[in-house]
Amino acid sequence: MASRPVSGAGDGLAVAIDLGGTQIRAALIDRRATILARAHQLTRADAGPEIVIGQIAELWATVCEGTNRSNILGIGVSSPGPLDTREGIALGIPTLAGFEDFPLKAALSEKLSMPVMLENDGISAGIGEWRYGAGKGLSDIVYVTVSTGIGGGVIIGNRVLRGRRGMAGHIGHMSFVRGGELCACGNRGCFEAYASATAFTRRAVNAATPLGNHGRAIDAAAVFASAAGGDALAISLVQEEAEYLGQGFASLLHLYDPDMLIMGGGLSNQFDMLQGAILSSLKASAMPAFRGTPVVRAILGANSGLIGAASLVLDGP
Amino acid sequence: MASRPVSGAGDGLAVAIDLGGTQIRAALIDRRATILARAHQLTRADAGPEIVIGQIAELWATVCEGTNRSNILGIGVSSPGPLDTREGIALGIPTLAGFEDFPLKAALSEKLSMPVMLENDGISAGIGEWRYGAGKGLSDIVYVTVSTGIGGGVIIGNRVLRGRRGMAGHIGHMSFVRGGELCACGNRGCFEAYASATAFTRRAVNAATPLGNHGRAIDAAAVFASAAGGDALAISLVQEEAEYLGQGFASLLHLYDPDMLIMGGGLSNQFDMLQGAILSSLKASAMPAFRGTPVVRAILGANSGLIGAASLVLDGP
Repeated sequence: MASRPVSGAGDGLAVAIDLGGTQIRAALIDRRATILARAHQLTRADAGPEIVIGQIAELWATVCEGTNRSNILGIGVSSPGPLDTREGIALGIPTLAGFEDFPLKAALSEKLSMPVMLENDGISAGIGEWRYGAGKGLSDIVYVTVSTGIGGGVIIGNRVLRGRRGMAGHIGHMSFVRGGELCACGNRGCFEAYASATAFTRRAVNAATPLGNHGRAIDAAAVFASAAGGDALAISLVQEEAEYLGQGFASLLHLYDPDMLIMGGGLSNQFDMLQGAILSSLKASAMPAFRGTPVVRAILGANSGLIGAASLVLDGP
Repeated sequence: MASRPVSGAGDGLAVAIDLGGTQIRAALIDRRATILARAHQLTRADAGPEIVIGQIAELWATVCEGTNRSNILGIGVSSPGPLDTREGIALGIPTLAGFEDFPLKAALSEKLSMPVMLENDGISAGIGEWRYGAGKGLSDIVYVTVSTGIGGGVIIGNRVLRGRRGMAGHIGHMSFVRGGELCACGNRGCFEAYASATAFTRRAVNAATPLGNHGRAIDAAAVFASAAGGDALAISLVQEEAEYLGQGFASLLHLYDPDMLIMGGGLSNQFDMLQGAILSSLKASAMPAFRGTPVVRAILGANSGLIGAASLVLDGP
């Protein structure tokens, strides 16, 4: 989205933070989901919460520069889980040292003297796509982010599905293959361990001969490019990935019965190549009454989490 | 529950129908979930909707006998799915001939000249346990019925999770073992195909030698009795069943983050023997933040669906 002049005093703005294990992204966002300013830093992931909170404060100052602070209604933070968002506690973020039972919401609120809304990253992105993206106007959506891991956000009856402590929708950790591949969560056979971009790339690396790839590093984009070029191995890898996704998506339709399933995350950049095989696999796995549910690509791209986090401040939970 | 005198005129009563492939049960129920009268018939499952609706009408007349009809606020029907409960349509009930795209709600409402609430049987039972059973007072529960099949009802934030057409919570049909056992739904590897009482009994029959069972038929109760008596094979079958249940329940905690998971259905009669191994399996499969969620047995027994269906009339959706 292009920059535009800062809105008038009455409109209200939010600062959104997308806290990740690799980078922290910040944006100043208005009520039309327009991103007015952006900044980012590489996350000092090993440095502990105090340093990371200092980084967020710097980013906050950067994106707010030149804006009347009284227009800023609060800060929305999208963070990896597991989080107890009812209490504002990070329970143990695997990619950030020291975020075990850490009162992230209270610490940020104190540091910035601002109301803070804290949300699981999958749910934030789901809220963004629901309110401003592919799911706009629908009452029931399942958003699935397929990236390093698999996360999600579920909206049912125009309400965000949060569960007891705000930890519902851990879609990546539904059991998928009993006793199967080890997952990053410690369990075996999770959906994430089969259908994430990480799993896809691992299969590609295991399948490819070093010579066959002409010495280039194998990443997801390279496999899709080879498939587009007609390479049989790459095509079969893409087909396998789509089959896993379709089977997992079928489970999600059975579990949540949404109007639409929205796929986001890095792998959704290849949605056009995956879509046909995802739908075939989904139709083979879903009960007849669920087969017609549309599966679409997210439209806010890498901004869905930021826009969702801002929306928590501007539009409410 | 014991019979008690019919409540006063101002209280309001509901007739609940539990429509099953084997029998149709009916009850007259008051606002305290007391069952005032009961009746049942064997379902004429092959006879088509008109005959089955006639059976429901007969049962309705039986349980209402001697009650002032003006006290009866409506009829709540718990039915096997898939149902589009928003439109009141049976989409295709596998155990009842002719219930394909059949307007069950409208047909009953016309036949009985009464408001009809139609609900999926798993959701009805979940509502019963939430409002009057093990989940009373909680805002977030997952109810799982483990019987011939596996069904469920999910309450999130004090609201029943229904999804777009009222078909959410098809817990039995989440993918559990990719490409595994054939399920009654036509798909392979569903949770139901591994953890239902039907699957448990099938494994027992396959594992037992005809002589070893002294010529008696093998059913679930017989296996549990043998396990209680120290039979090693029966103990291992019970252990395996509990492992499947615990793994599936872990997925459900990840997907819905409830305050409590409630197990009902026929196999919950053996909950005491399953509980320890279910919890061990769940703890091995669930992410740490989810491991403390209590797993308990339903307390309304075979009445949870009837009480839930009545509650839809008396307490609202």
